[in-house]
Amino acid sequence: MDEIEITSLAEPELRDPVLIEGLPGVGHVGKLAAEQLVEELDSELVRQVYADEFPPQVTVDDEGVADLTCAEFHAIETEGEGSDLLVLTGDHQAATNDGHYKLTAAFLDAAESLGVETAYALGGVPTGELIEEYTVLGAVSDGDLKPPLEDAGVEFRSDEPAGGIVGVSGLILGLGDRRGMDAACLMGETSGYLVDPKSAQAVLEVLQEVIGFEVDFSTLEDRAEEMEEVVGKIQEMQSQQQAIPDEELRYIG
Amino acid sequence: MDEIEITSLAEPELRDPVLIEGLPGVGHVGKLAAEQLVEELDSELVRQVYADEFPPQVTVDDEGVADLTCAEFHAIETEGEGSDLLVLTGDHQAATNDGHYKLTAAFLDAAESLGVETAYALGGVPTGELIEEYTVLGAVSDGDLKPPLEDAGVEFRSDEPAGGIVGVSGLILGLGDRRGMDAACLMGETSGYLVDPKSAQAVLEVLQEVIGFEVDFSTLEDRAEEMEEVVGKIQEMQSQQQAIPDEELRYIG
Amino acid sequence: MDEIEITSLAEPELRDPVLIEGLPGVGHVGKLAAEQLVEELDSELVRQVYADEFPPQVTVDDEGVADLTCAEFHAIETEGEGSDLLVLTGDHQAATNDGHYKLTAAFLDAAESLGVETAYALGGVPTGELIEEYTVLGAVSDGDLKPPLEDAGVEFRSDEPAGGIVGVSGLILGLGDRRGMDAACLMGETSGYLVDPKSAQAVLEVLQEVIGFEVDFSTLEDRAEEMEEVVGKIQEMQSQQQAIPDEELRYIG
Amino acid sequence: MDEIEITSLAEPELRDPVLIEGLPGVGHVGKLAAEQLVEELDSELVRQVYADEFPPQVTVDDEGVADLTCAEFHAIETEGEGSDLLVLTGDHQAATNDGHYKLTAAFLDAAESLGVETAYALGGVPTGELIEEYTVLGAVSDGDLKPPLEDAGVEFRSDEPAGGIVGVSGLILGLGDRRGMDAACLMGETSGYLVDPKSAQAVLEVLQEVIGFEVDFSTLEDRAEEMEEVVGKIQEMQSQQQAIPDEELRYIG
Repeated sequence: MDEIEITSLAEPELRDPVLIEGLPGVGHVGKLAAEQLVEELDSELVRQVYADEFPPQVTVDDEGVADLTCAEFHAIETEGEGSDLLVLTGDHQAATNDGHYKLTAAFLDAAESLGVETAYALGGVPTGELIEEYTVLGAVSDGDLKPPLEDAGVEFRSDEPAGGIVGVSGLILGLGDRRGMDAACLMGETSGYLVDPKSAQAVLEVLQEVIGFEVDFSTLEDRAEEMEEVVGKIQEMQSQQQAIPDEELRYIG
Repeated sequence: MDEIEITSLAEPELRDPVLIEGLPGVGHVGKLAAEQLVEELDSELVRQVYADEFPPQVTVDDEGVADLTCAEFHAIETEGEGSDLLVLTGDHQAATNDGHYKLTAAFLDAAESLGVETAYALGGVPTGELIEEYTVLGAVSDGDLKPPLEDAGVEFRSDEPAGGIVGVSGLILGLGDRRGMDAACLMGETSGYLVDPKSAQAVLEVLQEVIGFEVDFSTLEDRAEEMEEVVGKIQEMQSQQQAIPDEELRYIG
Repeated sequence: MDEIEITSLAEPELRDPVLIEGLPGVGHVGKLAAEQLVEELDSELVRQVYADEFPPQVTVDDEGVADLTCAEFHAIETEGEGSDLLVLTGDHQAATNDGHYKLTAAFLDAAESLGVETAYALGGVPTGELIEEYTVLGAVSDGDLKPPLEDAGVEFRSDEPAGGIVGVSGLILGLGDRRGMDAACLMGETSGYLVDPKSAQAVLEVLQEVIGFEVDFSTLEDRAEEMEEVVGKIQEMQSQQQAIPDEELRYIG
Repeated sequence: MDEIEITSLAEPELRDPVLIEGLPGVGHVGKLAAEQLVEELDSELVRQVYADEFPPQVTVDDEGVADLTCAEFHAIETEGEGSDLLVLTGDHQAATNDGHYKLTAAFLDAAESLGVETAYALGGVPTGELIEEYTVLGAVSDGDLKPPLEDAGVEFRSDEPAGGIVGVSGLILGLGDRRGMDAACLMGETSGYLVDPKSAQAVLEVLQEVIGFEVDFSTLEDRAEEMEEVVGKIQEMQSQQQAIPDEELRYIG
């Protein structure tokens, strides 16, 4: 196998497509949001990206059939006049610094070859506290991209997130910009301790408004309700036991 | 030395050979099973695979002669009408993600050049408990491969093993499938704490029936008896001392 | 992206330019000193060095615009007859051994292409104690470079620093020498526990005298005062509590 | 810089030269032995090997001049009729698996180009106990090499050392053998806790007899005396305090 191999499963004709990336990260916000689009809208699997930077691993499906770890692009033709979507999802990021660069470059190559000129990287930004109001924080490759995002409720805060944006999401902005692509990162605030479907919904609501499409949130809402029960139990435990160490809260989901 | 170098020691004429991989892993199940085949059947060393992904290490034999770490293919001509065997064994897996991919690709290249079109990756699946009934769990590269395995007692469980299959065994399915090879992984249930010759025997019993050959299990049975004494002592200690932490039980063998 | 990509933003005409490197390290001495030059003198950003050895990361500026992690060369035309300066700053070193070598080679290539024949690597040397007198320790690629540095107060001590000089600073001497470049490392003594603007000032005072330029220290002095308040509080706490473990003191700044 | 660069400083005419490798390892036995040869006999520095697998580091000499980390070959013309020596020393091994393979291959290339057909890798084998009788354990690339070593007192023990031989010493046997070079590893028994000049002397005494040269041991004996004082103090402390944990004993020297 080459370092990266891309399998083409279909050649969709997309109208002004935008890339939407949702790989695993803080609160699984980006991944939940991207998967929601793939599941709720009429999507077609068009590319699979295999890479020797991914773990040497297969997953086993409900029939006992093994699938080699990969990232996937799904094409979604939206109704109305808005852009079509090219959604990137997967179970892994790269394992090394240079792996992240190579992999993101391959993702951008694949997206460009399908006509993409604009990218949205979805993710979460950890606040360390349970969230009441789900704000979506933004960062852009070019200041001109801010007004429509601000109109949709995205907040831009000076020098935030403080630690920058790491992983594929960060590089979609950084490497995207270097090749002339417009790129924005939409980061839902989230505690950082829990898988957070509500934060994913907040990010999707922004995306709907900016791009111009509609998606049903009932699955995310169901998942959010389950998580709220978990959070409720945790808060109950907290009130009983004063405090629970972070490790026990980390990524219950 | 190149990244991977393969030394050819013999050019066997094999009848419809199948690859059987047994490298180190959970409970050393795959390695024990593969070595049993090499030792008990009439086997010939045909290939040695050296790789700079392996530890920089030589082992010293009973004559004081050093041998560079490698993986080995042994050819076994089976009696009767069944397939001949090409058995892959060794003391190490790769040290990095991309190393696993490169190494498995080299293994598959070597197997294909000897006529292999079907592969069985042998291993263990940890249950966290001492095993009473040695079930063999299966995963396949293609659903059509399941019926004969099910007939031989292999269980296929939805989405199991939960963490997927990692290492060379996983990639033999994943990369094998991508090059059109039929591949199955046979995983003997094992506690995960002990080297487990009984689990290896359960895997071999499946393999015998599926491929059609016979192997003597007396060596494995002797080894299993030794392990049972160890297990007996542990259980005695457990009943005396309530509990032993996992670390102390890990890989006694 | 290639392993290393260099973007040219301007082609300055520099008079006998010297390279001044100040990347992150002990007490952030080199980084503080180099940034002081870029901020206080009339500087122009001339090169940006992107590398897949750097973290996969963008930083977000005060406008919400993301910038891909890079190292930067600023050109400074000095007044008087002394050499002009080419100052290398950034937020990261490489992540691997070979990454350090590749990155430093790229830095030296870029500097040479702008006419540099002499390099100063700035850094700190940890003493484990709060510093009263800020000595600057030196090391050179060639013994002939010592007299002017000694005249400016630099001390050369046999076999010091004991652990050698690691990272980009060390390699600017080591790889610089191998390509015939004159290189010196100026290391301000610093506790190793705190960001140390005073140590940075001591290093800059040497550099001023050796190269022949003048820079305003008021920003560094302000920062030093802030740090002195921190140190004052720590000493107070020490006198109250006997001792504070090293970990709590490490890099407060 | 290339991955590995070799600087030639002299082209010695050597009579039937043998490679003697002594890089850092258990008890620094190999390194002490090799350095003893370079210092006590009439040696000439002939090759310097730079590699981006080594730490990114310079050492500073007693004049304040920095030297880039490298491994060095010294040529030694022995008196009498025995083989001349090509001694490999240095301060570092590689940092990765494949780095060890590449580096050892480069060492063997350099040695072969100077006429070497036989190699001795020197090292220590840890026993976990303070040593009374300094036995030298052997391993060879070919059984025919054993008789002259056994005549010189080298012991060959079945399957020892149990963990094999790792690092450059192991690969000099393993990769040396693959290119048709005769190679032996001479391992002085040593506690594993202390730098061990006596073990180094035991290894050199074997080497003297096998190759046919003579070296003065007074420096090693002085160093051994110093270490004996350390050991004496430790034993005194042990008798007073029952036991000292291993960590405190590790590599005092």
